[in-house]
Amino acid sequence: MLTEFGLIDRFFTRPRTDASHRLHTDTGPQALAPTPDVPSHTALGIGDDCALLMPAPGKQLAISTDMLVAGRHFFADVEPHALGHKALAVNLSDLAAMGAQPRAFTLALALPEAGEAWLQGFSEGLFALADRYACELIGGDTTAGPLNICITVFGEIEPGRALTRDAARSGDDIWVSGQLGDARLALGAARQEWQVDSADLPGLRRALERPEPRIALGLALRGLAHAALDLSDGLAGDLQHILKRSGLTACVDIDALPRSAAVARQTPAIQRLCTIAGGDDYELCFTAAPAARERIAALSTTLALPLTRIGTIRDAVLAAPQPPPARPRPLINWVDADGKPLPDTLTNTFHGFDHFDAD
Amino acid sequence: MLTEFGLIDRFFTRPRTDASHRLHTDTGPQALAPTPDVPSHTALGIGDDCALLMPAPGKQLAISTDMLVAGRHFFADVEPHALGHKALAVNLSDLAAMGAQPRAFTLALALPEAGEAWLQGFSEGLFALADRYACELIGGDTTAGPLNICITVFGEIEPGRALTRDAARSGDDIWVSGQLGDARLALGAARQEWQVDSADLPGLRRALERPEPRIALGLALRGLAHAALDLSDGLAGDLQHILKRSGLTACVDIDALPRSAAVARQTPAIQRLCTIAGGDDYELCFTAAPAARERIAALSTTLALPLTRIGTIRDAVLAAPQPPPARPRPLINWVDADGKPLPDTLTNTFHGFDHFDAD
Repeated sequence: MLTEFGLIDRFFTRPRTDASHRLHTDTGPQALAPTPDVPSHTALGIGDDCALLMPAPGKQLAISTDMLVAGRHFFADVEPHALGHKALAVNLSDLAAMGAQPRAFTLALALPEAGEAWLQGFSEGLFALADRYACELIGGDTTAGPLNICITVFGEIEPGRALTRDAARSGDDIWVSGQLGDARLALGAARQEWQVDSADLPGLRRALERPEPRIALGLALRGLAHAALDLSDGLAGDLQHILKRSGLTACVDIDALPRSAAVARQTPAIQRLCTIAGGDDYELCFTAAPAARERIAALSTTLALPLTRIGTIRDAVLAAPQPPPARPRPLINWVDADGKPLPDTLTNTFHGFDHFDAD
Repeated sequence: MLTEFGLIDRFFTRPRTDASHRLHTDTGPQALAPTPDVPSHTALGIGDDCALLMPAPGKQLAISTDMLVAGRHFFADVEPHALGHKALAVNLSDLAAMGAQPRAFTLALALPEAGEAWLQGFSEGLFALADRYACELIGGDTTAGPLNICITVFGEIEPGRALTRDAARSGDDIWVSGQLGDARLALGAARQEWQVDSADLPGLRRALERPEPRIALGLALRGLAHAALDLSDGLAGDLQHILKRSGLTACVDIDALPRSAAVARQTPAIQRLCTIAGGDDYELCFTAAPAARERIAALSTTLALPLTRIGTIRDAVLAAPQPPPARPRPLINWVDADGKPLPDTLTNTFHGFDHFDAD
């Protein structure tokens, strides 16, 4: 069994490559002044009581933390390289949803045992993704305990440019990136809820285990989109966060939801479940003025990433005079491609997958 | 069972008091410019993909993360109010050790069940301490899972003024705050390793469950102390971090280690174990030039906190010519009040409580 410090030295302390050249321990005033061509500056990384981080002058730090628990967020026997990737990816996805540039992260890790093969794979998967975004590990904590991974990420953004959830406007288009439902379809296949073609499995498993944070998209949406968030709990639940914070409602065309051929091969009920109430997509959902459609289409081409218009933001309905309705009025009006509202008996099942309806 | 969002709303979303007046969601450029009399500025807190935090102009952020696991860092049945206090206290202690001013924190929480009484006590204990330091909860994550608390804290400090571990100088005095060993004595009593007077129990339990982060001391030591850290794993292990990072050795007088009457009533062996190899003290250990003795004594009076000189930093012994010694040369020379070195058979047991000796 490795000791805590042996473990950190061996798997989580990086050689000083180009990507980590900003890590040093000279804490003199000159050394700490941000240099013009280095947007962020880590003055001190792993090995002291705290890391020291200085955002570039005038920039804000965007901060998010996510905790992943074995058996709940991932199968305990998942490939450790994929888990290292995903643990950081879901956090970077939160930075993407704000339009922030990744800079650094901390890692707290509870491990049942310090298995070397597992740690090797996990740290490689983690750093492979971190290096792609020059996102530096600046501190952390390791302990024995039931497997638990808690990452806190730090990104930079100019004040006033963050893509918040409260910024949707009536008349905005609603967009999503990529395809929805692949991760949920993979999960259901693993749980034997349904069957998928064996030829589809590798792609679906990749969607579930190696989500791609939409960093480039988030950065490009600053000044173009209004509200944004990342889809982690499923469209039906997540879109409501934008609507509640913005005080608005939405109409969504379920037939417009982008889906893979693998999802499209399933029954309509499974397709709906995966695209509307499935989680773990880590695509961005954002709103933008109709005038931005051409620029968004061009962006989709530039990024080689599908961006699909799925609905419209609408005014909130005025509060009904009392007595209040027995059931809160839904914030999302689900329609099909012909604009026909879906029956309540169906949309009620969408809401069954989130817990935000009855507040 | 509460839902995740109900839980956050009920226990972790604060009313806008004076202490949290900086929390708002106006992300316009004017609103986000730090105002002169508000050192730090939280532009956006709980409820979006990320929190937005802007350090005061010219300040660095000191960042630390600690994960607490049930059964390892605390008894699963510990009073939740005390646990809320301690979870934040151990993180604030890292800020204290750098001389940083607390500003904000994130909380990730895995819970076996969302028991309301437990959450009520935990959040009250957490916020009671947070409010004393105007340290604002800016984001987090909650999930089901084996009880695990991961807090990341953010403090502010002027570049170049942080109390790092690598800054000890040969000839420095070594100081510790407060008393050492009470927490370890309480733990041993709970584990029935030894007995303590029942009259001592409340004070010992308080030391174990409600450690006091030495924030005021850390702030006052900027410009006065050289190296510093907080004692979480026991003096023998923790002091070595300073020595290794500074490339120096130390001589420590074990009879000078400050201890409570409760510890002093134990056998010499138990006293040594608790003061030297016991963990969970969360006192500061720091080094300073002998010329600073008077100012440090005055600081002790001002803070009403004992500050005790326990030893001296010495030059590193030059590396021996080969062959290397069979066992690495110890970095700490333990002596008694007469300056007499303790026998190896004894000091070897000190090192038995840390894992850092054999690298």
